Amino acid sequence: MKTGEIAEFLSAELVGDADVEIDRLAAYSTAKNGELAFLESADAAGKTDASCVIVPESWTGSSDRPVIRAKNPKLTFAKLGPKLHPGWVPPNGYWHETAIVAERDKVRADFIGAYVTIGEGTYIGETCAIHDGVRIGKNVSIKKGTVIHANAVIYDNVEIGSDCVIHSGVVIGADGFGYVRDGAAGYVKFPQIGRVVIEDDIEIGANTCIDRGALGETRIGEGTKIDNMVQIAHNVQIGKRVVIASQTGISGSTVIEDDCVIGGQVGFGDHARVLSGAVIGSQAGILPGKIVRPGVWWGTPVQPLEEYKRQNAHLKGIARLKEEVKALKRQIADLIGKKSD
Amino acid sequence: MKTGEIAEFLSAELVGDADVEIDRLAAYSTAKNGELAFLESADAAGKTDASCVIVPESWTGSSDRPVIRAKNPKLTFAKLGPKLHPGWVPPNGYWHETAIVAERDKVRADFIGAYVTIGEGTYIGETCAIHDGVRIGKNVSIKKGTVIHANAVIYDNVEIGSDCVIHSGVVIGADGFGYVRDGAAGYVKFPQIGRVVIEDDIEIGANTCIDRGALGETRIGEGTKIDNMVQIAHNVQIGKRVVIASQTGISGSTVIEDDCVIGGQVGFGDHARVLSGAVIGSQAGILPGKIVRPGVWWGTPVQPLEEYKRQNAHLKGIARLKEEVKALKRQIADLIGKKSD
Amino acid sequence: MKTGEIAEFLSAELVGDADVEIDRLAAYSTAKNGELAFLESADAAGKTDASCVIVPESWTGSSDRPVIRAKNPKLTFAKLGPKLHPGWVPPNGYWHETAIVAERDKVRADFIGAYVTIGEGTYIGETCAIHDGVRIGKNVSIKKGTVIHANAVIYDNVEIGSDCVIHSGVVIGADGFGYVRDGAAGYVKFPQIGRVVIEDDIEIGANTCIDRGALGETRIGEGTKIDNMVQIAHNVQIGKRVVIASQTGISGSTVIEDDCVIGGQVGFGDHARVLSGAVIGSQAGILPGKIVRPGVWWGTPVQPLEEYKRQNAHLKGIARLKEEVKALKRQIADLIGKKSD
Repeated sequence: MKTGEIAEFLSAELVGDADVEIDRLAAYSTAKNGELAFLESADAAGKTDASCVIVPESWTGSSDRPVIRAKNPKLTFAKLGPKLHPGWVPPNGYWHETAIVAERDKVRADFIGAYVTIGEGTYIGETCAIHDGVRIGKNVSIKKGTVIHANAVIYDNVEIGSDCVIHSGVVIGADGFGYVRDGAAGYVKFPQIGRVVIEDDIEIGANTCIDRGALGETRIGEGTKIDNMVQIAHNVQIGKRVVIASQTGISGSTVIEDDCVIGGQVGFGDHARVLSGAVIGSQAGILPGKIVRPGVWWGTPVQPLEEYKRQNAHLKGIARLKEEVKALKRQIADLIGKKSD
Repeated sequence: MKTGEIAEFLSAELVGDADVEIDRLAAYSTAKNGELAFLESADAAGKTDASCVIVPESWTGSSDRPVIRAKNPKLTFAKLGPKLHPGWVPPNGYWHETAIVAERDKVRADFIGAYVTIGEGTYIGETCAIHDGVRIGKNVSIKKGTVIHANAVIYDNVEIGSDCVIHSGVVIGADGFGYVRDGAAGYVKFPQIGRVVIEDDIEIGANTCIDRGALGETRIGEGTKIDNMVQIAHNVQIGKRVVIASQTGISGSTVIEDDCVIGGQVGFGDHARVLSGAVIGSQAGILPGKIVRPGVWWGTPVQPLEEYKRQNAHLKGIARLKEEVKALKRQIADLIGKKSD
Repeated sequence: MKTGEIAEFLSAELVGDADVEIDRLAAYSTAKNGELAFLESADAAGKTDASCVIVPESWTGSSDRPVIRAKNPKLTFAKLGPKLHPGWVPPNGYWHETAIVAERDKVRADFIGAYVTIGEGTYIGETCAIHDGVRIGKNVSIKKGTVIHANAVIYDNVEIGSDCVIHSGVVIGADGFGYVRDGAAGYVKFPQIGRVVIEDDIEIGANTCIDRGALGETRIGEGTKIDNMVQIAHNVQIGKRVVIASQTGISGSTVIEDDCVIGGQVGFGDHARVLSGAVIGSQAGILPGKIVRPGVWWGTPVQPLEEYKRQNAHLKGIARLKEEVKALKRQIADLIGKKSD
């Protein structure tokens, strides 16, 4: 792609040569000839050998190579990803001969890899790619454009929207963790007969688990992005455009509303509710039933970030406080001593 | 199933019509016609459209539809699970033609899915179901009625009891994490040549890992239930009827005795011991070698729940304590000033 | 192997019969006839039925069976592991007929299991063993002697060194977790087009995830050992001979230098740097951008172990401090009262 074509695709202002050939995206400091990079802020210094740089509108430098002006250079750069790096495009209509598809007339996927198994009653839309060794159960529905990477497992009755990316080792629809204690006899399994709904445009990281609802459903909202090894328990409801970092665990029936940002290794008790727009820091712990309001939160039990920081500062001050109290005791003992003179 | 048959199966008292047809279990608030729900406590209000409700014995309401009285409605409801929702019943004796079974005369499983591989010397009992893509190594023993879901992996020499459920992505019997430092040369692997014993009636959640013993064995006791993504290291001993929630990690040689309840994201150091009946809250941290007595525990390092709560309350009070000390200092300065007048 | 041969292999001093046959390594307290054990320290008491024991040089006891003296008995014992328990040796040149290998002339692995798939352009060195159901993408390079266990997944363009062990369920090379928010429209994926380099002699535990670089590379250094379910994000750089325990998560672009020891369930923010030789305790939390110097660290936010312990001790003392302040208040009120008399 030429710099002129790129600027046109982005509807952005190009300053300089429109005919420079760009092969690849790269980081600013390591970019080489033929690569395009971005400068996150006008102050960011350092050199680049990139053949073209996306710069912020406030940038006032000069350059001997073409630059593209953008309000948000990182976002603009990201939008070039699928254009310059379309990734592996599945050969249209290629189903590996070893793929076992129970009802071929319900499956329209462009690509099905080797040793895939797809159960009865399962529908798969156009332009989907199902990679080697994926297991898809019975009565699953997967809409168009979704990619499922090697060895992921989808249990029966799961519903997956369009344009999702599900990475390797993901397990969707396994039984939730619910038991009722029956005295000395031990645990009786509570029915885990619900299902999972994954809406459109969702990415699910490697080895993440999303359990099906006990009686109802577990639901992940449109545009939500989930990192690796996240645990989403039965009946959890995740809203739209939520971001959840790696190794976070969300217990049964908890609700996370739209546009929340959840750090890594966060733990949610059951039946908690995070209101739209809240941000929760890594390793935080949310008690069962807790309602987390909009704002930035951290710590276990979770509290507003400013309070958490204050508490940490106070904690560091305890040693001095002890010394101060000791000094006061001496002074008072002195005073009392003197008084009784 | 008719309401009368259900009451009979449960040996419970039915009040009302014994001929109402029940198809499905459902939650109280969302149940519809043809569904059976339960009321957890007599106070729980709200309406239901369920065709039959299991109510506590203390319930004194009236109903225009049949109700079943039970001491523990949730437990009673749970017991109906396998009856009303038997799940997918494997076709008796169906082994997919692509399954590779090294010694067919040792394997009696009712169902073996596509692309399964089962190694030499491995025994599998009757009524087992081994789903697509499962890998079972050499000299494994699996007793009757156990179900292993798609793409789970059982390494060599593992012993699994009867009526277990092992979910997708589970890895049982991988090498434990043990090395000895050899100076500048780095790490030498400590032998990981032991095995894993999973007793009867155990459920293991998706993507959980249970390592084999270094020299001895790792053992999970009868009736224990393990959630998704739990880490169980070499030589760990888990007792009977233990519940372990998601993302908890248990280090080498730690012992958890019978009837303990362990929350999610708990971390156990090595060689710790949790005595029978202890309850440990989510995200707690147990130091290596620590003995945890019966009771409820929380925090890192773990402490009795009441102490943990008190400490948290104190923590919140530090700011005020600081103010109080400041005021005392002023008063004393005043007193000393006045005295020296 | 006879005791004499063992001592010779170890270049260690044998005291006693050189002709005792040893079949197996075992733990000191449970070892039986025909087994070899080790005594970690000269003080360690207890009996053993082992046929031979490796003892520390300081050991002054007497024994009716052969003993081998060693500076570090545990290390010496560990070195016997591959000798006495070579594990399953793959049949030379056995490729299962169901293995799908895109370019057979580039693959020299000794063993390829059933239902393995290996993509175009992928090179695999001699004496590698690729177990059942493993997925290896396109343009991957794997050097000699590496073992990949059942159902692990290697995405495209990953580079793996020699003599590595990669356990089941591991996912290497999946997309990193990077998005740019585009206002109300939600998240745009930041390009994840880099790669992963795993150097030589690395072990990676079951279900661990190592994401590829966003634009650059994610790298794991020679001799590093990684436990189960560890998360290693895009662009992370791990040095040589680093040990990382289970369920630890390392965010994007963080650097862990050579010879660090990282506990379990530790969380690293992005762009942190751990200097060579640092030790970080389990469940610690390292803030984004933090530099951790050599020494032992613990807690969230991470702090030197001694400080962390002092803080915990202070925390336990707050209740008493409160009482002391209350007493001081009374005394001062008294003093003031008396004065105004």
